Amino acid sequence: MIGDAAGRAATLVEALPFIRRFAGKVVVVKYGGNALAGTSDHDALDVFARDIVLMRLVGMRPVVVHGGGPQISDLMSRLGKETEFRNGLRVTDAETVDIARMVLIGQVNPQIVAAINVHGDYAVGVSGEDGGLIRAEARDPELGFVGDVVSINPAVLNRLIEEEFIPVVATVGTDVNGQAYNINADTVAGEVAVALGAEKLVYLTDVEGLRRDLDDAESLIRQTNPAELEALMADGTIAGGMIPKVTSCVDAVRNGVRRAHILDGRIEHVLLLELLTVEGIGTMVEDQTEGES
Amino acid sequence: MIGDAAGRAATLVEALPFIRRFAGKVVVVKYGGNALAGTSDHDALDVFARDIVLMRLVGMRPVVVHGGGPQISDLMSRLGKETEFRNGLRVTDAETVDIARMVLIGQVNPQIVAAINVHGDYAVGVSGEDGGLIRAEARDPELGFVGDVVSINPAVLNRLIEEEFIPVVATVGTDVNGQAYNINADTVAGEVAVALGAEKLVYLTDVEGLRRDLDDAESLIRQTNPAELEALMADGTIAGGMIPKVTSCVDAVRNGVRRAHILDGRIEHVLLLELLTVEGIGTMVEDQTEGES
Amino acid sequence: MIGDAAGRAATLVEALPFIRRFAGKVVVVKYGGNALAGTSDHDALDVFARDIVLMRLVGMRPVVVHGGGPQISDLMSRLGKETEFRNGLRVTDAETVDIARMVLIGQVNPQIVAAINVHGDYAVGVSGEDGGLIRAEARDPELGFVGDVVSINPAVLNRLIEEEFIPVVATVGTDVNGQAYNINADTVAGEVAVALGAEKLVYLTDVEGLRRDLDDAESLIRQTNPAELEALMADGTIAGGMIPKVTSCVDAVRNGVRRAHILDGRIEHVLLLELLTVEGIGTMVEDQTEGES
Amino acid sequence: MIGDAAGRAATLVEALPFIRRFAGKVVVVKYGGNALAGTSDHDALDVFARDIVLMRLVGMRPVVVHGGGPQISDLMSRLGKETEFRNGLRVTDAETVDIARMVLIGQVNPQIVAAINVHGDYAVGVSGEDGGLIRAEARDPELGFVGDVVSINPAVLNRLIEEEFIPVVATVGTDVNGQAYNINADTVAGEVAVALGAEKLVYLTDVEGLRRDLDDAESLIRQTNPAELEALMADGTIAGGMIPKVTSCVDAVRNGVRRAHILDGRIEHVLLLELLTVEGIGTMVEDQTEGES
Amino acid sequence: MIGDAAGRAATLVEALPFIRRFAGKVVVVKYGGNALAGTSDHDALDVFARDIVLMRLVGMRPVVVHGGGPQISDLMSRLGKETEFRNGLRVTDAETVDIARMVLIGQVNPQIVAAINVHGDYAVGVSGEDGGLIRAEARDPELGFVGDVVSINPAVLNRLIEEEFIPVVATVGTDVNGQAYNINADTVAGEVAVALGAEKLVYLTDVEGLRRDLDDAESLIRQTNPAELEALMADGTIAGGMIPKVTSCVDAVRNGVRRAHILDGRIEHVLLLELLTVEGIGTMVEDQTEGES
Amino acid sequence: MIGDAAGRAATLVEALPFIRRFAGKVVVVKYGGNALAGTSDHDALDVFARDIVLMRLVGMRPVVVHGGGPQISDLMSRLGKETEFRNGLRVTDAETVDIARMVLIGQVNPQIVAAINVHGDYAVGVSGEDGGLIRAEARDPELGFVGDVVSINPAVLNRLIEEEFIPVVATVGTDVNGQAYNINADTVAGEVAVALGAEKLVYLTDVEGLRRDLDDAESLIRQTNPAELEALMADGTIAGGMIPKVTSCVDAVRNGVRRAHILDGRIEHVLLLELLTVEGIGTMVEDQTEGES
Repeated sequence: MIGDAAGRAATLVEALPFIRRFAGKVVVVKYGGNALAGTSDHDALDVFARDIVLMRLVGMRPVVVHGGGPQISDLMSRLGKETEFRNGLRVTDAETVDIARMVLIGQVNPQIVAAINVHGDYAVGVSGEDGGLIRAEARDPELGFVGDVVSINPAVLNRLIEEEFIPVVATVGTDVNGQAYNINADTVAGEVAVALGAEKLVYLTDVEGLRRDLDDAESLIRQTNPAELEALMADGTIAGGMIPKVTSCVDAVRNGVRRAHILDGRIEHVLLLELLTVEGIGTMVEDQTEGES
Repeated sequence: MIGDAAGRAATLVEALPFIRRFAGKVVVVKYGGNALAGTSDHDALDVFARDIVLMRLVGMRPVVVHGGGPQISDLMSRLGKETEFRNGLRVTDAETVDIARMVLIGQVNPQIVAAINVHGDYAVGVSGEDGGLIRAEARDPELGFVGDVVSINPAVLNRLIEEEFIPVVATVGTDVNGQAYNINADTVAGEVAVALGAEKLVYLTDVEGLRRDLDDAESLIRQTNPAELEALMADGTIAGGMIPKVTSCVDAVRNGVRRAHILDGRIEHVLLLELLTVEGIGTMVEDQTEGES
Repeated sequence: MIGDAAGRAATLVEALPFIRRFAGKVVVVKYGGNALAGTSDHDALDVFARDIVLMRLVGMRPVVVHGGGPQISDLMSRLGKETEFRNGLRVTDAETVDIARMVLIGQVNPQIVAAINVHGDYAVGVSGEDGGLIRAEARDPELGFVGDVVSINPAVLNRLIEEEFIPVVATVGTDVNGQAYNINADTVAGEVAVALGAEKLVYLTDVEGLRRDLDDAESLIRQTNPAELEALMADGTIAGGMIPKVTSCVDAVRNGVRRAHILDGRIEHVLLLELLTVEGIGTMVEDQTEGES
Repeated sequence: MIGDAAGRAATLVEALPFIRRFAGKVVVVKYGGNALAGTSDHDALDVFARDIVLMRLVGMRPVVVHGGGPQISDLMSRLGKETEFRNGLRVTDAETVDIARMVLIGQVNPQIVAAINVHGDYAVGVSGEDGGLIRAEARDPELGFVGDVVSINPAVLNRLIEEEFIPVVATVGTDVNGQAYNINADTVAGEVAVALGAEKLVYLTDVEGLRRDLDDAESLIRQTNPAELEALMADGTIAGGMIPKVTSCVDAVRNGVRRAHILDGRIEHVLLLELLTVEGIGTMVEDQTEGES
Repeated sequence: MIGDAAGRAATLVEALPFIRRFAGKVVVVKYGGNALAGTSDHDALDVFARDIVLMRLVGMRPVVVHGGGPQISDLMSRLGKETEFRNGLRVTDAETVDIARMVLIGQVNPQIVAAINVHGDYAVGVSGEDGGLIRAEARDPELGFVGDVVSINPAVLNRLIEEEFIPVVATVGTDVNGQAYNINADTVAGEVAVALGAEKLVYLTDVEGLRRDLDDAESLIRQTNPAELEALMADGTIAGGMIPKVTSCVDAVRNGVRRAHILDGRIEHVLLLELLTVEGIGTMVEDQTEGES
Repeated sequence: MIGDAAGRAATLVEALPFIRRFAGKVVVVKYGGNALAGTSDHDALDVFARDIVLMRLVGMRPVVVHGGGPQISDLMSRLGKETEFRNGLRVTDAETVDIARMVLIGQVNPQIVAAINVHGDYAVGVSGEDGGLIRAEARDPELGFVGDVVSINPAVLNRLIEEEFIPVVATVGTDVNGQAYNINADTVAGEVAVALGAEKLVYLTDVEGLRRDLDDAESLIRQTNPAELEALMADGTIAGGMIPKVTSCVDAVRNGVRRAHILDGRIEHVLLLELLTVEGIGTMVEDQTEGES
């Protein structure tokens, strides 16, 4: 066992400076609805939940933000309601936003909360309507109740974090009249990270990371900065669903978040490995090049 | 105006000792799903929300507990799922509990939260899964995921109350494995009132109050005690959907809640009138006869 | 009762935003010695005391400042001491200031304290000598111990307010040698309001309010500002005993007090009506026109 | 200077263990009205005030309680009102209690406060009516408004002490209806000492101390206990105005006050000498013989 | 790297429940003078220091207690002073205790402090004389200044622990006259663990653990209890220098310390491996058999 | 006794404004190794210790800094090691610094701690290595481990002071690699006084004070300022071992320390006499002439 012990000890010793560095720091993790939608991914949720609890146990302050697009589509089809898209965005009428709210707050959110709370009374589900967390407004009248973030009131999150709860945020917001809006979860994750003064913003995705050349697996970007990312979006290398994530990364690191990460959520314990080992994983974004894991 | 002013002044002066008495006290209010289900009741919700905010503004600590039976039935029928009843209780299979959860946490709860938060960032939706609030177990294997309360962990509620938020509780609980259960909201309201050491437990119903003789509107019970209520349940005068409410009232006042009330939610501002005027409304239950409004 | 209840509920609902607005705010109320001097005004003191307690119960922080001119004259005449006036100001020799001190601190102040404390252990009498509250200096050697305020040390008042006591201030001050001075109570009220960062400064008088034309009851000023008041004092419309009140109102709203009011103390519960209803009463002064009750 | 220095150093070093012992401890000092009544005693008040400030500066928490019998008699005679005595007690009608209140709260109290506050903003005058400090009831209907202490609510005193103010207490109390009573100051001093959990209760008198034989100056009692004092009162050795002082000493040391002292207020700085030097002064009372200065 | 990553992740995940269990818990570690005496053991001290810092970083509260026998002997011989032993105990005259104090407080203690503080400003050296930490008395007049522990005043340690410093304790104590005594470090470690309510008491030794049969390496005791240890001391299986360690383990677990451990300090990172992995190392003592690592 | 009492009272009354002025203020006292080295000076240490405790008892926050040159030389000679001096500074090889550390931390420091703690659990020994208190670097490679102060981290001292302990500082520092250095104690005293924002910095020496003319005892400097001291050092009037003291005084008063004093430690209770009497003793340095004791 002693031989084996040396390896274990080495891992623990390596984790030391990172645990010190992140103690008391907020880490916002965007967990995708895709990850939950698959039937066989129950284990993936369990591993994710365990990592979040470990982060909390060693003194970090994790905040989970999630969406739920596939689950919304699923309930809409079960209710016989067709989805209309305009410029790639779902047209969201009153009934649709009610369905989205039910799914995000009433289905996906408690599923994540329950997975975390198997380990203790840690997680508390929060919607953007709670305590005025997300104030929203319509993006475009033609799209109906698709909202943009107007402002974030982080009071509820701060209280829960101070009490060492783990907030799990469903990305529904309201306008001043109490009307609900469906809001892009990638965008909310970035806004929340800025409002909380987070140390890190992490996107768990189903790709290995960003590439400089989409066709070249060898071109994985390990470390980058806002300027390069803006260039890659301008020339179309980064496109589609990656746009809100990358835009949020850029905004976040320019507004006080120390680092943003796009990680491959398919790797088991990818959060722990990114946070607690020397070798980086996926793509890391920071505003100034300083040198860290 | 001066004449009118005398009346206003009298009302304010009358409210004085009650505001003093209830300052800092927790009042748990059970708000029925029925009240929300009607299409024309939007105004009723607004009036209710305003009263809850007023209670909070004058220093009370209101906690709202709600159910949503009619809304659950409605979504089930829209999804083409039939409801089976056994001994008056809904048989709740895995799909049904998922639907109940979606409706309670994702539809009814944010509706109440939004109505309150039109007045400010007060309300925070909480489900029984958050922070381990409601630990549940199956009542009867034949009924599926119909749960009984095993224990209440009021930590989340206490934190929110201390921060002067208004918790709005959806009555879903989980067992130790994270399995969700649908739980009777009347029962949860009573358990929560006891766990929080509430001053009052209030049921807003669609009847005027309890009667000693069901057929005699004159027999309205203004003030009663656990012993009388147990006798009225034993002889069948109190029956049906009133049983969980009345049982909870009895348990609550025997476990430290000072008074329990069954009020007619159809009267506008019934909460304010009960709390802040000398004349009582509806039926009041207390353990020992002491004499109060 | 329900009909009646609607009126009561309306009054309570109207009071809501005012209670919210004034929670935790300091309101300095100048209560005149005249109000106490009349033999039949015992009831008026009781009503006043009850209003002050109500303000405190709904979360405001009332501070009472009082004078006692008629009572001083009365004791002087009983002691066979004649009062000499010069330019309308009482010449105050050593014996006179001792008498004034006895009356203000030992007669009027405890009378108000006792009236409030019938409702609970709320009021604490404070003189300007306590904890160095009012530092004074002689106004004019010819007048003897008539003092002007040099500075206010609000430490004692702040401590009492924080402990939710209601300070009742007798307007005697001392110079650096411990010599006592009699000081105009209207002036002290304004200085104390500024020193405490009060929300409101209220003068209870025996007139309906200020008039633009002394002979025209219809010319009551409901809302005004420092500039207009200075013009009215310059042209003699405002004169006599109103000068210290109006000057203090002007100084107060220019130094951080949000609003000053000159109210008719003869209206029952005028304080509650001014504070908790939409319609204003008497004359209200503010520095910038913003729009409030 | 060095030789002189040795003596000074010795005094400071001797004071050391006493300063340590009394740090943070409450010492209630009864200051007699007699001491203030004499025309030439202004210097005595200054010395007393300086000692009280010194006690506070080295960390003790002095509380001054005073009466004012001679001053009351003086004002009554100036107002042409005759004093009737019954069994040695002043019959106190409504006018008399108003006079007593004026004198105690409005004359004697601010005189002491002012003398202390020449040294800083330390003293705060408090009457037994403030914050419900002294609840009183009539001793005997024939005596009118001569009161006995029913209860002490030390909240106001505790707040002022915590803020490091020096409370100066005028011994007027009120009954539940707000009626004022004149109360024996010796008795109040003892009751206040018990309510505050004082370390010491000190009576400043104009005698050297108690004697075992009234005619023998050599029989001064340096140290005694409740039992001996009760015997000396029973056999008449202790009589007259000493009775309330001695009774209060006995009650105080039996109810948690560590020591009570009867000192000769005519000795300059007698408080400092008693508190901060090894040799005791006057008569000391303690419940159990333990051995201390 | 991913394969390697799985192993690392497994180690981190295994450490999770232990980090949770020990967060905020005091762990007293006795570090032997032998470990420091060897010339080549500088690396061992560095590894030990790093482990102590890691414990602190993941939220434990380590306290180091050390002796220094070999170093004392060394300085004595350099000073030409001979050591006399009586019944195996060093006769300690005044000069010897001065030498012991110099070595323990001035040589060994700063050596450990410096090794820890290479990683940050964590360690603070404390002797038993500081803040009255160890009150001692002579064990036997013939032995001179060899002391037994009379009492522990943990105030200094508690303050340092609360401020998240790591106390390093040199085992010198004083009697009421300020006379220093040399005290057995094994014994002090146990007394300190009890006084601090420690979770664990750990002895780092140069043996693998306790054995049931001294000659049989296979008889290593992995888990035991006070009763068995007392039997093994009674029959002589445990003897010599192990006696103070084992006696302290027995006393500690009987007085509130949850577990005591005798570990082989020669294994690298043995502290981390014992604390953060499932497999136990060395010999573990607990009062009641409950089942843990 | 009364006559004697008047003198004592006068001393206590004189001490009053000083006790007020210094309450809660940090006073750093440099205590020389010479004072301890003499065989008959045990009493001097006791008197010093008693004064330090008195300062603490009346609310000051004393910090003791000490050297130990004679004691280091003594142990070196006992160990047969010769001391080499270069430019008046001791060449300090690795063995020498170990000896210095042993003497300062392990001999002189506990001697002072023990003398203070005879009076209670007040003193806590601290070395410059504890909690990173003194960061040092080599002054000159030729001198070996003679260090200059790079920075002071006062965290440990602040914590101990807040807990009302009396820190006793041994002047050993470390560089970033944990290497120890011997540092001039006069210099450390000044740096510590600045880092703690001390009110006073006091050097206890064996001279009466500074002189303007070395040969003229009448030329004792009672009060001076940095400019004059720099001139006196420039012209050689101040020289030798006085240089680090005087330089530190100059630096300290220019960096926020209110006054620095060079006192004659041979006068009994010189600390008390300087601090608590009107007449100054020795030489006082302040940056601006303001007028104080």
